[in-house]
Amino acid sequence: MSHTRVRLSPDTRREQLLDLGVQLLGTRSLDELSIDVLAEEAGISRGLLYHYFRNKQEFHRAVVRRAADDLIAVTVPDETLDPISRLTAALAAYVDYVEHHFEPYTSLVRGAASGDQLLREIYEDARTALTGRIFESLGEYGLDDTPAVRLLTNGWAAMVEEAVIAWVPDQQLSKDELLSLLAAALPAVLAPTAQPPNGSS
Amino acid sequence: MSHTRVRLSPDTRREQLLDLGVQLLGTRSLDELSIDVLAEEAGISRGLLYHYFRNKQEFHRAVVRRAADDLIAVTVPDETLDPISRLTAALAAYVDYVEHHFEPYTSLVRGAASGDQLLREIYEDARTALTGRIFESLGEYGLDDTPAVRLLTNGWAAMVEEAVIAWVPDQQLSKDELLSLLAAALPAVLAPTAQPPNGSS
Repeated sequence: MSHTRVRLSPDTRREQLLDLGVQLLGTRSLDELSIDVLAEEAGISRGLLYHYFRNKQEFHRAVVRRAADDLIAVTVPDETLDPISRLTAALAAYVDYVEHHFEPYTSLVRGAASGDQLLREIYEDARTALTGRIFESLGEYGLDDTPAVRLLTNGWAAMVEEAVIAWVPDQQLSKDELLSLLAAALPAVLAPTAQPPNGSS
Repeated sequence: MSHTRVRLSPDTRREQLLDLGVQLLGTRSLDELSIDVLAEEAGISRGLLYHYFRNKQEFHRAVVRRAADDLIAVTVPDETLDPISRLTAALAAYVDYVEHHFEPYTSLVRGAASGDQLLREIYEDARTALTGRIFESLGEYGLDDTPAVRLLTNGWAAMVEEAVIAWVPDQQLSKDELLSLLAAALPAVLAPTAQPPNGSS
């Protein structure tokens, strides 16, 4: 049994650096976010940074994972609300996050299609965490967890990503209108799956 | 005024090479599709190929553009059908194309998120061509061409891409069920936009 002290400090410092990384993406792209930029903004040496992140790729993955974790955290559903209000509230938190962290968010979504297998996994983990909450509450919508429901719910998540990324720089709709349209879209898309499957030929 | 003969032959040969490129993607990824592979399959020299495509990147872009053009061509809407049947028929052609050209199609969709600006433009042109047909027929759905309709229609297109890419290797639903769910999703998602915008606070 080890009695060495638990050293929280390096972990805490690493977390602070990731927060700074996400924040720095507010004004530059992931490609522009180098270890040099981070070192300068953090006021520490490049050498020390390489103690926390082996290379730029590992740093980028950690920053994107931090953005994913933040997004999952801010959209935790309020279980005291009815299903549609809960979905609208979670969507509102989602849109707020994307609006204020547009570059880290687009880096996350683009990771889905990138050649970087780990970025793809970070994206897929985030998508699974977000849609998993919907799958857990299907009963409240009067729906079963079927392949059709999963396919359409994941499709709806892709719609939300597409719409929010288009909306942020453009904002031709009010945020309330965006939220109510996207929240209404999920039950609208899922409604036909509630019909008995042998109802047609 | 020039009286040189129109030399169709090199263009025709280039088109044949692109067809072959799309066909070769049936059994390998874009990354695996090299000029060497194309030369071997076409039975011509690498030197001659470099006459048609300056480098691998230009060849890849041309193959992805060919896949996009094919997809746009096979999904030309049948104007004799009513809107929902027309949409379902176009979707059926779309799903058939993706099913039989899965790798070129995923290369096209991934191009949307790639760092290659030209691949991104090819994807965006294809998406614009496909959704443009819907925008042209909005009147038949009793809808106006508004920012909300455009946002949701583009979102629905992202849903279709997501669902079809997930469905092809999996096929837990019948193709008919997939088509009817995706076709029904568009009017379902757009329905709230037909309400007068000043109906709520």
